[in-house]
Amino acid sequence: MPTLSKKGQAMPASPIRKLVPYAEAAKKSGVEVIHLNIGQPDIKTPSQALEAVRNFRTEVLEYSRSEGSESYRAKLADYYGKQGIAVTREQILVTTGGSEALSFVMSCVADLGDEIIIPEPFYANYNGFATATGVTVVPVASGISDNFALPPISDFESYIGPRTRAILLCNPGNPTGYLYSPEEIRSLAELVRRHDLFLIADEVYREFAYDGKKHYSILQEPGLEDNAVVVDSVSKRYSMCGARIGCIITRNEQLMQAALKFAQARLSPPTFAQVASEAALDTPPSYFEAVNAEYTRRRDVLLEELGKIPGILVARPQGAFYCMVELPIRDADHFAQWLLEEFRLEGATVMLAPAAGFYATPGLGENQVRIAYVLEENQLRKAVRILAAALEKYQADGH
Amino acid sequence: MPTLSKKGQAMPASPIRKLVPYAEAAKKSGVEVIHLNIGQPDIKTPSQALEAVRNFRTEVLEYSRSEGSESYRAKLADYYGKQGIAVTREQILVTTGGSEALSFVMSCVADLGDEIIIPEPFYANYNGFATATGVTVVPVASGISDNFALPPISDFESYIGPRTRAILLCNPGNPTGYLYSPEEIRSLAELVRRHDLFLIADEVYREFAYDGKKHYSILQEPGLEDNAVVVDSVSKRYSMCGARIGCIITRNEQLMQAALKFAQARLSPPTFAQVASEAALDTPPSYFEAVNAEYTRRRDVLLEELGKIPGILVARPQGAFYCMVELPIRDADHFAQWLLEEFRLEGATVMLAPAAGFYATPGLGENQVRIAYVLEENQLRKAVRILAAALEKYQADGH
Repeated sequence: MPTLSKKGQAMPASPIRKLVPYAEAAKKSGVEVIHLNIGQPDIKTPSQALEAVRNFRTEVLEYSRSEGSESYRAKLADYYGKQGIAVTREQILVTTGGSEALSFVMSCVADLGDEIIIPEPFYANYNGFATATGVTVVPVASGISDNFALPPISDFESYIGPRTRAILLCNPGNPTGYLYSPEEIRSLAELVRRHDLFLIADEVYREFAYDGKKHYSILQEPGLEDNAVVVDSVSKRYSMCGARIGCIITRNEQLMQAALKFAQARLSPPTFAQVASEAALDTPPSYFEAVNAEYTRRRDVLLEELGKIPGILVARPQGAFYCMVELPIRDADHFAQWLLEEFRLEGATVMLAPAAGFYATPGLGENQVRIAYVLEENQLRKAVRILAAALEKYQADGH
Repeated sequence: MPTLSKKGQAMPASPIRKLVPYAEAAKKSGVEVIHLNIGQPDIKTPSQALEAVRNFRTEVLEYSRSEGSESYRAKLADYYGKQGIAVTREQILVTTGGSEALSFVMSCVADLGDEIIIPEPFYANYNGFATATGVTVVPVASGISDNFALPPISDFESYIGPRTRAILLCNPGNPTGYLYSPEEIRSLAELVRRHDLFLIADEVYREFAYDGKKHYSILQEPGLEDNAVVVDSVSKRYSMCGARIGCIITRNEQLMQAALKFAQARLSPPTFAQVASEAALDTPPSYFEAVNAEYTRRRDVLLEELGKIPGILVARPQGAFYCMVELPIRDADHFAQWLLEEFRLEGATVMLAPAAGFYATPGLGENQVRIAYVLEENQLRKAVRILAAALEKYQADGH
C-alpha cells in the first residue's frame, strides 16, 4: 500500500471530532444534548441575503473572477470605508471562507519551517492550516486571569528569530472573546515594523464588540501598509457559515499579487454565495444592534450563571461569542466525554469544547473549556445548570 | 517591507492572464473578441439545479458537514454505481471544486520535494497546486502526432525514483482531449501497484466521450483499491463552473481519513452549491446525450475547418472539449498577443490559449495552442476563419 505524506499523517483532527460519536449515541438514546461546543450561530441569516439567491437568475452558472466579482468587491470596499478602513476594491480578494483566506495568507508569507507567532489559546484550525502549509506555529501564552489580554511585547520579542515571518492575531478572539485595544494593536504595529514582519489579523468577529467598545482594526493603524493583512468572513457576521465567503484585505501590493495567483489556481469563489454576501451588505445597522444586544444579554446570562458555580475561573468576553472557563477538574477531555456518556439532568446533558485543542503548548488548557453562547437565554441557563450539577457529581465521584 | 515566502513568489500566474489586458483593450475599441481560450461552457446549467437553489428554504445558512452533506454523498454514490463504479458514501468526500480536491490529494500523498509524474501537456493549474503544496511535477512527454496517447510505460518507469509518490492523469484530457483506453489504464495500474504509488485521475470530463467510446475510470480497474484516487467536479458536467463543488473518491481508508482532516480544517463546502449539485444528479440521460451530440458536432466542425488550414497539426479529441493544435509559427504567445492587438477580420479577432503553459518542460509546446470548442457552430466556423486569415497575414508579415 502506498504511504501517505508526512503532513497528511500529521494533520490534526478537529478537537471536537472525537466527542461526536458520544454525542450521537446520547441523542440516539433519547437524551437532549445542548451544544455549548460549536460556533454555529442560531441567529437568522439576513433575509436580503437569502432572497438575493432566490431571485438570482442565470442560464449558465459561470466562473466568477478569481479575485471575486467586481460588484461585490466594490461594495465591500464601501463597507470597510464606513468602518473607518479606507481600502479600494483592488486591495480586497474574495476567498472561499475565512479558511481559504488564512491558508492563502500563510502560504504567501511562510515556507516550510518558517514561523508564525500566535498568542495562545487560538482558533484550533490555525494548526491545521499551519500543518498543511508547513508553517511552524510559535505560541505566546496569554492567561485567563487577565481575560487573555495581549502578552507583553517582550514575550513576543523573545520568540522572534531568523525564521519568524509573521504575528497572527484573532480579534476579537476565538476562543477567548478578548477584544484588543488600540494601544495593544499599536504596540504590535511598532514591533512588526521594527522586525519587518507581517501582522495578520483574523477579524471575522469584528462586528461583535460589547460594553460600548469598538473594534480597532490593524488596517486603521497608520504606517502598517506593508505589514498588515486582514482575514475576514461573512460566516459569523451574517450568520451564514454555509456560504463559504471570506476575503483577504491588504494594502501590500506584492502580497495581493501573490495571493491572486493562489486564487487563480483554484479558479473562483462560489457564485451563489457571492450573490448572497453582496446582498448581505445591505443589512441595516439595526440588525447588528439587535444581534449585539442579544449576544450581550446572553453573555451576561452566561456570566451570571457561571458565577454561581464554585471553584471556576471565567474570562470575561468583550467580543465574539465565546467564553473560556477553567474548571475545578484535571482533564476537560475526560469530563466532556463523561458528560455525554454518563451524566443526565432531567434527560439532558451538554457538549463542551475542551480547550487543550486551542493551545499549542502541551499541557496547557487541560482544565479549560470553551463555551459558545450561541443559544437563546433559557437554553443557556439550563445548560449552565446542567454543567454545575455535573461538576458536583463528577467531583463527588472522585474524578 | 517584509518579504514574501519563496512559494508565494514562485506561484505561476495563469498562462492566459497576461493576454487579458489585450483582450480588454480590443473589446473597448469595439472589436469582437471570440474566446477560444476558455473552458467555460456555454451549455445551459440543468434547470433542476438552479431551481433547487431557488426553492431552498432555510432561516440559518449553516455549515454543512466537512465531508459534504449525507444526502448529496449518498446520491453521488448512486450516480457512480450507475457508471459501473461501486463506491459507498463513506468513500466520497465533497470538496470546493475539483481544485480543492486536487490540492487535498496532493497534500495527502506528497511532502515538500516529493514527486508526482504527470504526462504533459497537462492542465496548467496542476503546477499551481504543486507549487502551493511543495510537490515537484515530473513531466513525461506525450506527443501531438499520436493525439497525446499514453506515453510508453517504460518512459514512466524511467522517472520513478525514491521520491516518486504518485502518477496523475487527466482523463479525458485537458488540454489534449485524449481519452485513455482500458488497456492504457490497466498498464498504469500494473505499474503503480508494482511501485506502491498512488494513481490519481482527474475525471472531471468523464461524461464527455465521443465516437461511441466510453470513459473507463481507474475505479473500475480491479485491484487498485489502495492506489486509486479520483478527483471529480460538477463544473463541466452540468455547466456549473460557478458552483465550486467537486469530490474525492477513493477506497483507500487511510487516504480518506487524511483528506477529511484537511476538509475539517476548512470547515465545509458551500451549502447552496451542494443543494444545486445534488439536484443536478437528477438530470436525465437525455441531457448528456444532447450535450455530447452538440460537442461532437462542434468538434467535427472544428476539425473540418482546421483541416482547411495548411501547415497545421491537429490532435483529434475523443473527449472533453479541447483541441490541441500545432501552428506553423515559432511563438504562440506572441501570435496570441498579436491577434488581440493587431489582427481584425470584419471587426473581429480570436483569443487563443498558448500551449506552453500546459507543459512543464521548457521549450515544449511553444508553437501550439489549445482551442476550447465551447462555442456554437457558427461562431466556431467564424473563429477558425479568422485564425486562418491571421496565420496567413502573420506569416506574410515575416513573423
